[in-house]
Amino acid sequence: MENEISELLTQKKYSKLREILSDMNPADIAQILEEIPQKELPVVFRLLPKEPAAEVFVEMDSDTQQLLIEAFSDAELREVLDELFMDDTVDIIDEMPATVAKRILKQTDAATRRLINKLLAYPDDSAGSIMTTEYIDLKKDMTVDEAFDRIRSVGIDTETIYTCYVIDRSRHLLGIVTVKDLLLNEKSEIIANIMDENVIFANTLDDKEEVAGQFEKYDLMILPVVDTENRLVGVVTVDDAIDVIQEEATEDIEKMAAILPSDRSYFKTSVFNTFRARIPWLMLLMISATFTGAIISNFESKLTIFPALMAFIPMLMDTSGNSGSQASVTVIRAISLGDIEFKDIFRVLWKEIRVAFLCSISLAAVNFIKLFVLDYLILNTFDPGKQIPEILVVCLTLFLTVVVSKIVGSTLPILAKKLGFDPAVMASPFITTVVDAISLMIYFGFASFILIS
Amino acid sequence: MENEISELLTQKKYSKLREILSDMNPADIAQILEEIPQKELPVVFRLLPKEPAAEVFVEMDSDTQQLLIEAFSDAELREVLDELFMDDTVDIIDEMPATVAKRILKQTDAATRRLINKLLAYPDDSAGSIMTTEYIDLKKDMTVDEAFDRIRSVGIDTETIYTCYVIDRSRHLLGIVTVKDLLLNEKSEIIANIMDENVIFANTLDDKEEVAGQFEKYDLMILPVVDTENRLVGVVTVDDAIDVIQEEATEDIEKMAAILPSDRSYFKTSVFNTFRARIPWLMLLMISATFTGAIISNFESKLTIFPALMAFIPMLMDTSGNSGSQASVTVIRAISLGDIEFKDIFRVLWKEIRVAFLCSISLAAVNFIKLFVLDYLILNTFDPGKQIPEILVVCLTLFLTVVVSKIVGSTLPILAKKLGFDPAVMASPFITTVVDAISLMIYFGFASFILIS
Repeated sequence: MENEISELLTQKKYSKLREILSDMNPADIAQILEEIPQKELPVVFRLLPKEPAAEVFVEMDSDTQQLLIEAFSDAELREVLDELFMDDTVDIIDEMPATVAKRILKQTDAATRRLINKLLAYPDDSAGSIMTTEYIDLKKDMTVDEAFDRIRSVGIDTETIYTCYVIDRSRHLLGIVTVKDLLLNEKSEIIANIMDENVIFANTLDDKEEVAGQFEKYDLMILPVVDTENRLVGVVTVDDAIDVIQEEATEDIEKMAAILPSDRSYFKTSVFNTFRARIPWLMLLMISATFTGAIISNFESKLTIFPALMAFIPMLMDTSGNSGSQASVTVIRAISLGDIEFKDIFRVLWKEIRVAFLCSISLAAVNFIKLFVLDYLILNTFDPGKQIPEILVVCLTLFLTVVVSKIVGSTLPILAKKLGFDPAVMASPFITTVVDAISLMIYFGFASFILIS
Repeated sequence: MENEISELLTQKKYSKLREILSDMNPADIAQILEEIPQKELPVVFRLLPKEPAAEVFVEMDSDTQQLLIEAFSDAELREVLDELFMDDTVDIIDEMPATVAKRILKQTDAATRRLINKLLAYPDDSAGSIMTTEYIDLKKDMTVDEAFDRIRSVGIDTETIYTCYVIDRSRHLLGIVTVKDLLLNEKSEIIANIMDENVIFANTLDDKEEVAGQFEKYDLMILPVVDTENRLVGVVTVDDAIDVIQEEATEDIEKMAAILPSDRSYFKTSVFNTFRARIPWLMLLMISATFTGAIISNFESKLTIFPALMAFIPMLMDTSGNSGSQASVTVIRAISLGDIEFKDIFRVLWKEIRVAFLCSISLAAVNFIKLFVLDYLILNTFDPGKQIPEILVVCLTLFLTVVVSKIVGSTLPILAKKLGFDPAVMASPFITTVVDAISLMIYFGFASFILIS
């Protein structure tokens, strides 16, 4: 497809190109426009009819949008802006450098500009930041027929017309009526009689992640948003909720891997910004691991007497790290999905302890078989005189560290959440560093007790 | 809320209870029903009016559903089933033990039973498994007015009525018409003239994750599904797409933490099943780490000569593990989101190498300052005679392992995907085990070359 289009472009077969593009979906056109040479971009964009052009514009990444805006005349810019929904306009302005943002605002009338500035002021993670201001409002004394007339008159411009909001004079939300309700009732029926007063709504300052959770829980298509005085100010649509869900999952995954979250895609993030997102945790964890090293240093003199103990260090560290990560990641995800709250901490602990016992018995047993049956009885690869006690130290350590790792891994995220930190930060790398130190202390503790005493 | 309800229950104030429940959302009622005592469950459920009762039933977890079904008379069961959408019925049957499933099927008529069995036969991860068979179909020679009549006559039962599908005699999909289109056109207009023939659709056997991706890409509310002969057989709605998106994110996160994915929530998974999901990777990674231990064993005699080298092992292993995890997790998520494909492997590699250089220079520099300036010049804590070379070995190792870890971490998931494996499996724990071994080999390599030669 892309090849065909770039061929038509070099041959300047614009009418053929226009024909192909008119059959395509805006999201697909946007993808192609992001990849064609920059200088061709305005040419191709101008081939698109007005309405799809605006949709294509919204779907493009912000770098491509900026290139286009810079190529637009004021009239062209105004034409695209006129077709945009308010939330998309605000998102675009939010991503642009100050000079471009100013130029966009100059093309809007005073009322729109005030509204845009108000929307821009909502915190980044609030419901207000993802809502749009286009929706259909009805009065409760309207008839079904009048409601249809209102939908027809404002409908074309609103992002979704199938749920209408019944408001009073001061824009307080009284109830909702769906187009389905309207279709299934007599034309003369009064809205007040058919509206559903039991409305799920959000506040402008609600966390957008929680708002997205409401869509999931209640299977919503659209959710009204009210301000602090309970007046209807906008709606959040399900496509924006999906974007929030994906962003939050990506953010959690990044935090779990000790990366500072970013909201740009992989190739759109510069090398320096990727570096900046990764180095703080790498540095912090490296410094913490120095303390783990100090534990080894302390035991150094004894390790030179029992050098065979050294070879088990990676296995013990890795296994306890993995056990802790499994527990922490499971708990972090369950917190994100709303399955675990602080009050569940003892239930979690009780469950993890039982799981830990099963895991640690299995792991210690396999190790025992490997070390005792294979290495000791069959291959006999250990130095004589310190075989059975060493095997005992390794297996006991393995058993205890796995249990401790699961306990630490499962409770730290819950405690972090309670203390107001992000639980996702308590994931694999952090837990690994903590349980590494713990497992070495347990190891050397058993070694001192069993081998040296 | 829960307290109030259990109080009303013990006082047997059923009419007050019914009143409270009638004002609540089905998802909230379901949550409460999951937590009240089992013997009260059927009593409370029977207080609900018919339509919300079915919605509440769908929202409950499968254990509670099973308890209720077992308490239902055949007539009650049929009443609930009659109100369910086909996809929900199939999901419920799928989760029930064989005897319960049989009892449900017995309450349905032969045609429904055939349809249910057909839907049950779709693979678990296919579009067919999440679609429902309720939708509105139109003929292309209908008028707008006739279309509205059809919506009114079948509308109440369909999960979404706002997008109608135009089909021919053999049920081939010709186009779509939205209720918005119908509202904005004359009543006498012919459907064929206003339908959009440019329809995005899925096949029954398409991967449900890809189908969910289409919702995200094209901002869909509903997506038609056709069979291998291109006949319309069902639709997927956006609420099911959201569930798929959440499930897939959870699955990826679980795999990244070396856990076999499960589709039940944390507390719904038994201790034994949690153990079963975690032990395979723990065991495999423990055994792999034994090989890392073997690398240390090989170097054991030299380590006893340079015991100070031992203390750096945790720091080097952890830092390389974290560097590798960061790269692999970033790449895995980008693959999931469709940002990275196999053809991008060299672009990824080039980016990761540059990021790795920045990271490794910073980390090595901090280590050098700590070891040379702080430990050597100021505190002078090293044994004399092997100070500068040891510092050199540690810093060079750190530099090289971070670069190698990022390369391994970023390319393995892409290669795994190309070979048909799940890239998420190449995440933190696996990468950690691989780069642990690599970093120790590099460390001992430098140590042999610089210190011993």
